[in-house]
Amino acid sequence: MALIVQKYGGTSVGTVERIEAVADKVIETKKQGNQVVVVVSAMSGETDRLLSLAKDITSTPTPRELDVLLSTGEQTTIALLSMALEEKGHPAVSYTGGQVHIRTDNEHNKARIVDIEGAKVHKQLAEGKVVVIAGFQGIDEDGNITTLGRGGSDTTAVAMAAALKADECRIYTDVDGVYTADPRVVSDAQRLPRITYEEMLEMASLGSKVLQIRSVEFARKYNVNLRVLSSFEDGPGTLITDEDENMEAALISGIAHNKDEAKLTIVGVPDMPGIASQILGPIADANIEVDMIVQNVGLDNKTDFTFTVNRNDYEKTMAILKKTADAIGAKEVSGDNRIVKISVVGVGMRSHAGIANIMFKALADEGINIQMISTSEIKVSVVVAENYLELGVRTLHAAFGLENGAMSK
Amino acid sequence: MALIVQKYGGTSVGTVERIEAVADKVIETKKQGNQVVVVVSAMSGETDRLLSLAKDITSTPTPRELDVLLSTGEQTTIALLSMALEEKGHPAVSYTGGQVHIRTDNEHNKARIVDIEGAKVHKQLAEGKVVVIAGFQGIDEDGNITTLGRGGSDTTAVAMAAALKADECRIYTDVDGVYTADPRVVSDAQRLPRITYEEMLEMASLGSKVLQIRSVEFARKYNVNLRVLSSFEDGPGTLITDEDENMEAALISGIAHNKDEAKLTIVGVPDMPGIASQILGPIADANIEVDMIVQNVGLDNKTDFTFTVNRNDYEKTMAILKKTADAIGAKEVSGDNRIVKISVVGVGMRSHAGIANIMFKALADEGINIQMISTSEIKVSVVVAENYLELGVRTLHAAFGLENGAMSK
Repeated sequence: MALIVQKYGGTSVGTVERIEAVADKVIETKKQGNQVVVVVSAMSGETDRLLSLAKDITSTPTPRELDVLLSTGEQTTIALLSMALEEKGHPAVSYTGGQVHIRTDNEHNKARIVDIEGAKVHKQLAEGKVVVIAGFQGIDEDGNITTLGRGGSDTTAVAMAAALKADECRIYTDVDGVYTADPRVVSDAQRLPRITYEEMLEMASLGSKVLQIRSVEFARKYNVNLRVLSSFEDGPGTLITDEDENMEAALISGIAHNKDEAKLTIVGVPDMPGIASQILGPIADANIEVDMIVQNVGLDNKTDFTFTVNRNDYEKTMAILKKTADAIGAKEVSGDNRIVKISVVGVGMRSHAGIANIMFKALADEGINIQMISTSEIKVSVVVAENYLELGVRTLHAAFGLENGAMSK
Repeated sequence: MALIVQKYGGTSVGTVERIEAVADKVIETKKQGNQVVVVVSAMSGETDRLLSLAKDITSTPTPRELDVLLSTGEQTTIALLSMALEEKGHPAVSYTGGQVHIRTDNEHNKARIVDIEGAKVHKQLAEGKVVVIAGFQGIDEDGNITTLGRGGSDTTAVAMAAALKADECRIYTDVDGVYTADPRVVSDAQRLPRITYEEMLEMASLGSKVLQIRSVEFARKYNVNLRVLSSFEDGPGTLITDEDENMEAALISGIAHNKDEAKLTIVGVPDMPGIASQILGPIADANIEVDMIVQNVGLDNKTDFTFTVNRNDYEKTMAILKKTADAIGAKEVSGDNRIVKISVVGVGMRSHAGIANIMFKALADEGINIQMISTSEIKVSVVVAENYLELGVRTLHAAFGLENGAMSK
């Protein structure tokens, strides 16, 4: 008998009819001989309804009270799903985050899980019950209600799976798995049956927003088998797991892209120690996250410094950068917010130096100019002009033969 | 510095604007130098909205899960009221029933409070905060969420006042106090500045639905000073308290009436031991509550037996009674659901035998026929035909001189 944790998001439980459909899926899993724990989000629209009530009172709600308010959303769903299960003849019991001691720190609105007590859940499972748990919420050590921030239900599910030593944590979403590229861009993109945590982290951080990054990190840390599946269609989805000794490591798993970035360059900077922090310090102070950073050594003890930020932060960053340029005596500042980052991801490239070369050549053959390059152990990213998005992704998808699935060594 | 518990019902917190008005009332009380604990209900309409979600899933929701669902209603209100207080510059902290350990038995949907831990609330009050508590809910000893049943927020407020040894528990309602009679029936009915617990219990059980009976019982048991006031107008309301040695005991406090009853009579019953339980047993088994019971000794070892039930239970009771009549060989069964019960209430009548006589004479002078009589230590009730409701109440109000307030000895 396996222990399966399932997580359903707001759209999957958005109406009473959908909650009943979720109950059917849970029952099916139970009938296959499994113990089932279900983690649910608030019904879609509910969180916004509650936020709008708060907004009518104040534009700056107390973080603690906002958590008390928002946590009612999932509490409503757990009650309704448990009722639906009972109505269909399957004993169920619901728990809020506090009731199963999902202990978090006290950072209201964006708390992190510290500990989960699994004993109560195991006891109910042993009695044959389905256990339904409110996602997204917990309590701090003083018993105050906390929330993990939007999308935090994925993290609840993974943390619960880790605490219970579940066999698998299944995240039901509106897509049926992780693909070799965005199917809206590459029509013959293939669903990956399996992918490593590290690859998934790179894919997620590069714009394939199937799962919350935090939940994948959590899964990797506690070695939880994570599966992404569709709420609406049957299918095996994609299993996200550890790199297996016996598993033939994929050279390339997929092509990710991200068009939410903008790049900024400061030209003719005096090349001396500490200059990078003089440039990036004021940007970090403004709470702007920097993604790629490239520095070229130039002539005359001068250097050029280029980096990318979220496109929404472009204007703000540009203003800060101009001030910095004046202060440090840089020659000029330029920027471009019509760029796209395209990345080739695969754990197999660790031991294969030729990947970058294949990538650059394929892009060159199509006349696509590379503006920036950045590499990590398991990915190579390039920045190109935004209008090359589709062509670039399709070219690389074909260059690595991904229309037949992940490329093996 | 006094400690005041205030309770606001669903209508008083029915919109964001009303919640803000409640915040103003709370702040005013605090500015007068008091510590304030506020108990609130769900926003009006919210409980029905949640019930309708449950009803879409099942006609028989699991009682435990229904409590998980309904308890979100008050949780929403406590968060919003606390935000409103903070927005107006007054530190506040909200607690669910579970968070302040309102321990109940495990009778879901109609739980009874067993214990309340006041330490956490006292600590927050000492730090200058307003404490906002969800009414109507608690937890059982296993940490399951329970509810006290509809209207239970009054009980939460009184129990909280008892646990905290508060100076006064103020229940804000849509009326500005307890009156000598229903002002819709008697235009010169007077607000009573003060009334005893016992009188209030009789008034409440007789149809003056200002307060939940259970909350008054609780207040009497723990000697909590209870005050009924208007949410919408300023005023001292009515203080419900213990009979005071120094307080001039009112002979008659008011005239209550109840038109929700129906009477049934079984005629020609063999007068023998156990006959009352043979008649009432099957009715109790059907969960029908019996109010007044009158038995007349008749001729030939036969007796007539009359009792009243809630008007909604009339048909059902009649069917049961007919079966019983056949079984015990009674002569016939009759009934009337167009009756009204009118009662004269006052602790002072304990030591004054003439009250009943004044009452019967006043009614007789108006040609009102009395169908049943029942008395307790502090009330005399009569059943008359429904069309005499207004005339009967007005006649008695005048007969006891209540247009000048409670009648003294």
